[in-house]
Amino acid sequence: MTDQDCVFCKIARGQVPARRIYEDDVCVAFLDIGPLAEGHTLVIPRQHFRDIRDIPPDVLAAVMTPTSMIASALMRTTDATGINVLQNTGLTAGQAVFHYHVHLIPRVEGDGLGFIWNAGKYEDDRADELQAQLVEALAAAKA
Amino acid sequence: MTDQDCVFCKIARGQVPARRIYEDDVCVAFLDIGPLAEGHTLVIPRQHFRDIRDIPPDVLAAVMTPTSMIASALMRTTDATGINVLQNTGLTAGQAVFHYHVHLIPRVEGDGLGFIWNAGKYEDDRADELQAQLVEALAAAKA
Repeated sequence: MTDQDCVFCKIARGQVPARRIYEDDVCVAFLDIGPLAEGHTLVIPRQHFRDIRDIPPDVLAAVMTPTSMIASALMRTTDATGINVLQNTGLTAGQAVFHYHVHLIPRVEGDGLGFIWNAGKYEDDRADELQAQLVEALAAAKA
Repeated sequence: MTDQDCVFCKIARGQVPARRIYEDDVCVAFLDIGPLAEGHTLVIPRQHFRDIRDIPPDVLAAVMTPTSMIASALMRTTDATGINVLQNTGLTAGQAVFHYHVHLIPRVEGDGLGFIWNAGKYEDDRADELQAQLVEALAAAKA
């Protein structure tokens, strides 16, 4: 998808309407059009980045600052007693629009939402192996 | 919960073992002991903050930079074709340890994981009202 076809780019440019609740030089926040809960908000950078792998650290930081501010505002303004802050990277993870966006999903007791939580356990050898692979991959990425 | 009793503070200080995959001056990343998927990782700041409402912007930024790096490493190192980046704020949202942490949950097709996605719709009046309340709350927070 090019920048030209991206609906979140269009929202950022004001070419597609959205219920904006916050904006600054770097990002725009608006109510999700298909909310999971009252106040479900998306925070996007104005620039087009696909997902967490290609968003630069300074833009990521500039998106997260208002994200934390909006989380607090949602808990003050709605009945929410919790918030899920969720970014889906990749179709497999549920990403539907391939322009980086953070979901703020307000939660109330018994709302039937949440992440499906089937915790597993590693075989010791597999955990050792995975740890070693990741340590190596991250040392290489940092170098 | 005080800092003294917090298991993630203990992990950060090295008083409780964890399979660390990355660390720097500000944060530590380690494999979740009850993984939802191979490579399920937690990224925490060394300092104790409860959730997204009280973590300062500079610490949040310093946590997110390695988080994005680890997301990329997980997708290179494991079979994952997607990643959910999830921060739960509050018991209602599924937060179990009250020390700010970001989950990186690697996803593969048909894994049965994901956020429960029952999208709703606003009555127009309610969306208007909510938008106005949030705009006001955020303008006040920014001022």
